[in-house]
Amino acid sequence: MSKMAEGNFFEDFAVGRPLVHGVPRTVTTGDVALYLGLTGGRHAVHCADSFAQRCGHPRAPIDDLLTFHVVFGKSVPDVSLNAVANLGYAEGRFLAPVYPGDTLVARSQVVGVRENSNGRTGTVYVRTEGLRDGEPVLEYVRWVMVRKRDPANPAPPAQLPELKPALDVEDLVVPAGLRAPDDPDGLAGARWRFEDYEVGERIDHVDGMTIEEAEHRTATRLYQNTARVHFDAHREKQGRFGKCIVYGGHVLSLARALAWSGLETVVAIAGINGGTHANPCFAGDTVYAWSEVLDRRPLPDRDDLGALRLRLVAAKDHPCADFPLKGEDGRYRGEVLLDFDYWALVPRA
Amino acid sequence: MSKMAEGNFFEDFAVGRPLVHGVPRTVTTGDVALYLGLTGGRHAVHCADSFAQRCGHPRAPIDDLLTFHVVFGKSVPDVSLNAVANLGYAEGRFLAPVYPGDTLVARSQVVGVRENSNGRTGTVYVRTEGLRDGEPVLEYVRWVMVRKRDPANPAPPAQLPELKPALDVEDLVVPAGLRAPDDPDGLAGARWRFEDYEVGERIDHVDGMTIEEAEHRTATRLYQNTARVHFDAHREKQGRFGKCIVYGGHVLSLARALAWSGLETVVAIAGINGGTHANPCFAGDTVYAWSEVLDRRPLPDRDDLGALRLRLVAAKDHPCADFPLKGEDGRYRGEVLLDFDYWALVPRA
Amino acid sequence: MSKMAEGNFFEDFAVGRPLVHGVPRTVTTGDVALYLGLTGGRHAVHCADSFAQRCGHPRAPIDDLLTFHVVFGKSVPDVSLNAVANLGYAEGRFLAPVYPGDTLVARSQVVGVRENSNGRTGTVYVRTEGLRDGEPVLEYVRWVMVRKRDPANPAPPAQLPELKPALDVEDLVVPAGLRAPDDPDGLAGARWRFEDYEVGERIDHVDGMTIEEAEHRTATRLYQNTARVHFDAHREKQGRFGKCIVYGGHVLSLARALAWSGLETVVAIAGINGGTHANPCFAGDTVYAWSEVLDRRPLPDRDDLGALRLRLVAAKDHPCADFPLKGEDGRYRGEVLLDFDYWALVPRA
Repeated sequence: MSKMAEGNFFEDFAVGRPLVHGVPRTVTTGDVALYLGLTGGRHAVHCADSFAQRCGHPRAPIDDLLTFHVVFGKSVPDVSLNAVANLGYAEGRFLAPVYPGDTLVARSQVVGVRENSNGRTGTVYVRTEGLRDGEPVLEYVRWVMVRKRDPANPAPPAQLPELKPALDVEDLVVPAGLRAPDDPDGLAGARWRFEDYEVGERIDHVDGMTIEEAEHRTATRLYQNTARVHFDAHREKQGRFGKCIVYGGHVLSLARALAWSGLETVVAIAGINGGTHANPCFAGDTVYAWSEVLDRRPLPDRDDLGALRLRLVAAKDHPCADFPLKGEDGRYRGEVLLDFDYWALVPRA
Repeated sequence: MSKMAEGNFFEDFAVGRPLVHGVPRTVTTGDVALYLGLTGGRHAVHCADSFAQRCGHPRAPIDDLLTFHVVFGKSVPDVSLNAVANLGYAEGRFLAPVYPGDTLVARSQVVGVRENSNGRTGTVYVRTEGLRDGEPVLEYVRWVMVRKRDPANPAPPAQLPELKPALDVEDLVVPAGLRAPDDPDGLAGARWRFEDYEVGERIDHVDGMTIEEAEHRTATRLYQNTARVHFDAHREKQGRFGKCIVYGGHVLSLARALAWSGLETVVAIAGINGGTHANPCFAGDTVYAWSEVLDRRPLPDRDDLGALRLRLVAAKDHPCADFPLKGEDGRYRGEVLLDFDYWALVPRA
Repeated sequence: MSKMAEGNFFEDFAVGRPLVHGVPRTVTTGDVALYLGLTGGRHAVHCADSFAQRCGHPRAPIDDLLTFHVVFGKSVPDVSLNAVANLGYAEGRFLAPVYPGDTLVARSQVVGVRENSNGRTGTVYVRTEGLRDGEPVLEYVRWVMVRKRDPANPAPPAQLPELKPALDVEDLVVPAGLRAPDDPDGLAGARWRFEDYEVGERIDHVDGMTIEEAEHRTATRLYQNTARVHFDAHREKQGRFGKCIVYGGHVLSLARALAWSGLETVVAIAGINGGTHANPCFAGDTVYAWSEVLDRRPLPDRDDLGALRLRLVAAKDHPCADFPLKGEDGRYRGEVLLDFDYWALVPRA
């Protein structure tokens, strides 16, 4: 009996099929330290128990993106081991904060399939949940292009999920107990409030961060994400790029860490509207980032917190004073790595 | 009075001499996170408190090999600072699980010596113990070739320990409280049972992991292993290989992490029968691994767990679909890094 | 309203001005593990709760230099974002041990300014404090050369703080409860006592440690030190050295870790008299270290602990058997990276 895990192929994804992902994971202050060391994050709510308590937390929750990466990583062996490409995300919602000591498990359900006209690949949509003791802490939909096991197999009927282009502010969940911190000394690192941001405002995060192989691989292993393109330089030498690709989530985390400057007072990421990995990133690339305020919404029944819809763009080897995004042809410029659309919660004045 | 630690030379190892190794070490969830980030291990019992509790543990024990590396590292300044080569291991037994918060100390006793005919080196055998609060958690014998301080010194009478070529299943200690987990959802990542493995069965673990200098050095420092060949590129430029060598234990840990695939349900390493570092490993090498089931034994008085005797082979820059090991001349092939023989405990059907 | 943090310029530093640094930080056993993995430190009081308890601690305190780096890192955005050079340190005192779980904040006060004759830069002196729950745990003065915002701005009157060339032993604070450990087995790794050290004695620490980009960057991010020269290889390619510079504090930590050999029994760093980063350090450099006993003082009212004033010198690509320091011209030799002057506490006989 072969013990080789070959992963699922396109034919294996019947709409409605549940997938229980293996290897539950207790996140710890060790993970937090390593995440901080690898990304350089500085949002105070994740750095200090005392500041988190000012925000209504019992202690510092882990970075929302660390939760995302751990849950995402668990889904890789079942969802994307035979993936050709990650195509997109939608309807990502953070439902509860995660604290060191919590144990995360992940499960998914196939919510859509569509075979490609070439007969060799198809798009699979899955809704993934991260859970702690059975309680959902995160959910999102992602879609990937997956190889068929056998091109001769007949195409299943196409079935596409209805996905919101962006979450409404009413869809967002404010973590239980979360409140705007009392921060008279500006310990968050700045004093920006909801009212200080204008729709259309763009922020250059200025700093750059060069990526090393050891860094992105250590981060990606920490998430137990086993996608081979990140780790196996021997095989990738013969591959499409001749070298390993950096996990797109590492680029996202670096961009989010750089985006502390100008967004210091963010106390939570509440939703992920979508995201595109526009170009591949490799070790040696230097990541820069800029943000744009896409929308600004009061939260229902809250006068202490508001929601900012933000675009976070990462670019490589290209400082972002000119806010690079798309060219005249409407396509992402070659230096753009990431175009990420999310909702963040910030204190109101 | 010189404060320079010169380490022990062959003449210093009298049979029966006890060695108390310095620097006790409290292992923490921080070490666990870093070990995971550097190796990519996924055995559920070490990743999640909840899963470990299903196995009868109060919380997740640290990876058995992390225990091994910490204990081994402590012995380096006293045993192998003047070693020319690590020659072998035998009779390794894990005697109790180690949990974050436990403090490990290590001590050894010289159990054999034999001077080489060249008069300049000799083989030293030591039995090393790792202890927690005085209680042994690990023991093993290793032998190393050590330089003499002065070739003119007379050779001591050769005295060799009797060592078992492999532990018997009766020699293995099942950690107190350990039981096969109830895992109806397959959270371990697979459902293989003792009965699913056949003697002679070989498993290709497929994935590869490329090693960077920063990774193996960080791992080896984490174990406080001070062997110079791993760290000092300036000196090694003039050395035998012109560059630093990766600690063999890091290769072992990577191979063990890759060997999750196909051996997902292993709940503990119980014994180390032996191990050979067949060829040196360097930064830039990509490690692949395969396993062979050497033996399969029920455990005395247990119907929930069985013992698999496994060979774990690591190879560099050579995917293992052809199960590389030895050539026609009986010598290890050039790509083989490690040939490791151990006992693992797995659930029975 | 621009959200770009441009940092303070010389004109912004009025003597007496208080600076509250952002982002409080809870240090954890995760930080300890990563610090150990990146530096290789082995002082037993920081490695094992049990040994720390023998020294009178409730559990293992974090390495004094980790405290220093975290506090220093917090001051960077406010003090040295526009710095041309770190010029010096003085009057550094460790006032209380820091334990995993403690939350550190940092604040500074400008204590001196002097514009340079070129009118484009000036020296700024700040006294920085690290605090835990409002209680100071560390204080030090540092001075940096900072750019003026506009050379046309008038020079402020020069005002220089009075700084001791070195702390007196009476200035040192022995951490509450600290005592010499009872260590009959030599678990510290050696048995050197205060009385074993002689003024003028020099110790070659022998080992070398090669630095990788991933290592110094991960360490520096762990301290949330955002100085751009360490991280942004794309910009630094056009910079003064054509590549990123290693944070001087990482060199200090490596040198201190190497300096375990011969100084194994040190139980605390009590004071920092001064320090010079003599030459820049880059990834690929191998760090060696040596120490000199500059002074040896009994501690007032203590017969179990004494104070050693030590010089710690780090050199690159140059083993330190010849104790490299300055040339005949009185200037640091090209291989010298660091000349650090501090007080350490060691057990008395």
